[in-house]
Amino acid sequence: MDTITIGVVTTSDRAYAGIYDDISGKAIMEVMGEYLQNECVYEYRCIPDEQPLIETTLIELSRDKKCDLIVTTGGTGPAPRDVTTEATLNVCQKILPGFGEQMRAASLQHVPTAILSRQTAGICNGSLIINLPGKPKAIRECLDAVFPAVPYCIDLIGGSYMETDETVIKAFRPKGK
Amino acid sequence: MDTITIGVVTTSDRAYAGIYDDISGKAIMEVMGEYLQNECVYEYRCIPDEQPLIETTLIELSRDKKCDLIVTTGGTGPAPRDVTTEATLNVCQKILPGFGEQMRAASLQHVPTAILSRQTAGICNGSLIINLPGKPKAIRECLDAVFPAVPYCIDLIGGSYMETDETVIKAFRPKGK
Amino acid sequence: MDTITIGVVTTSDRAYAGIYDDISGKAIMEVMGEYLQNECVYEYRCIPDEQPLIETTLIELSRDKKCDLIVTTGGTGPAPRDVTTEATLNVCQKILPGFGEQMRAASLQHVPTAILSRQTAGICNGSLIINLPGKPKAIRECLDAVFPAVPYCIDLIGGSYMETDETVIKAFRPKGK
Repeated sequence: MDTITIGVVTTSDRAYAGIYDDISGKAIMEVMGEYLQNECVYEYRCIPDEQPLIETTLIELSRDKKCDLIVTTGGTGPAPRDVTTEATLNVCQKILPGFGEQMRAASLQHVPTAILSRQTAGICNGSLIINLPGKPKAIRECLDAVFPAVPYCIDLIGGSYMETDETVIKAFRPKGK
Repeated sequence: MDTITIGVVTTSDRAYAGIYDDISGKAIMEVMGEYLQNECVYEYRCIPDEQPLIETTLIELSRDKKCDLIVTTGGTGPAPRDVTTEATLNVCQKILPGFGEQMRAASLQHVPTAILSRQTAGICNGSLIINLPGKPKAIRECLDAVFPAVPYCIDLIGGSYMETDETVIKAFRPKGK
Repeated sequence: MDTITIGVVTTSDRAYAGIYDDISGKAIMEVMGEYLQNECVYEYRCIPDEQPLIETTLIELSRDKKCDLIVTTGGTGPAPRDVTTEATLNVCQKILPGFGEQMRAASLQHVPTAILSRQTAGICNGSLIINLPGKPKAIRECLDAVFPAVPYCIDLIGGSYMETDETVIKAFRPKGK
């Protein structure tokens, strides 16, 4: 079974400054551990909400660390310091708007402020980047909504072969592919 | 209670030329009056469908008039003179695609041509700009669909504190914020 | 009744090389023949997944052949050779995000990987361009989801007057327009 390299990028001025613990980054690794049967290597970064730094981090994790998947948390709202979406749009060669649509639709089941999220996804140097919200509870909701499509996406961009624990989440791969 | 400054921008060659009355701009102010318990000051503009003029109007209302919210009506369809969306995309520092998705989903309950609308929303100089359709009936439908998220959005960008009449529409603010 | 000019653009390295038959392009023409009562003239192109070539083809079909509608098939996924979306975004003067949203929502009823599709639509030199997926089965699903809005869209951009077979699909035109 392939080893999967997963980048986890928490963008948060306060977590970076140690004002609070980065629960969100940990939540992502926990969910991945439940979803995937593969061994996972995590490249974890906790950085402030600075767009150039977010961009260089995404480029490093995709080009140098060759992550199959990069998941960000935080920085997708409308506040001035929320710039993770802009960084993602800037570094990706391809944008996948369906991820943002689907994650907002999932969050809308819980809160009407889901429409304020600017989460997106895209392909950067052969890695799939997905923006998640900053709140740990919303992280699981959003991942559950889009993860069934993630393994096939990573197949299409030439990444490692993910195998999910089907009692937790079921990956979908079209037949004859 | 804070006073709310609301920009209302009707973009319509025909309303500007006086060929017909601007019912849409009036409809927006009427809905705002029903939604909000705050005192509202309106900055109303009725202008032709000229992209540079729409852009300078949006900049004036955000930067100089310091509107909390700017609502446009008209110019979001596929016709050559429909350029309000382009003007909005050009002046905003941040785009909020969830508003357009949600307004189109609401309009789709009524007409299949809702997919032709290019309505969006974004943040321009600290103001939230929302594009609404040109037809008075669709204005209410679209505002009902997104307004519950508007007061919290304006909190996040440093604007005035909106208080809604909860018998008409209920604003949502996440707890602990 | 107006004659409708329809561009059908299959972007596929393998179909272009003759490795397999272009079933998708044929499927589009078949569906159009069922939908429309007008006489249709097809401008059919089967080309490789090269972005500059796709762009010049879209420009030729819109500007020179004056197509009312241009339908592409293929090249909307996340793989490196999928560049039809980028070509469409580049040549269009206006983007209509509601088409992509609606087509992904329709495909999501069938497969969770629908969120990987980057299909969009837009206006290029007075033609409506719609991206469809590459698989014949998904073509019908996507067209059924958006076509009711197509004739009115083409009215708005000054194209020919489409008349549909209402036992197959019902076009919607707002009253009083």
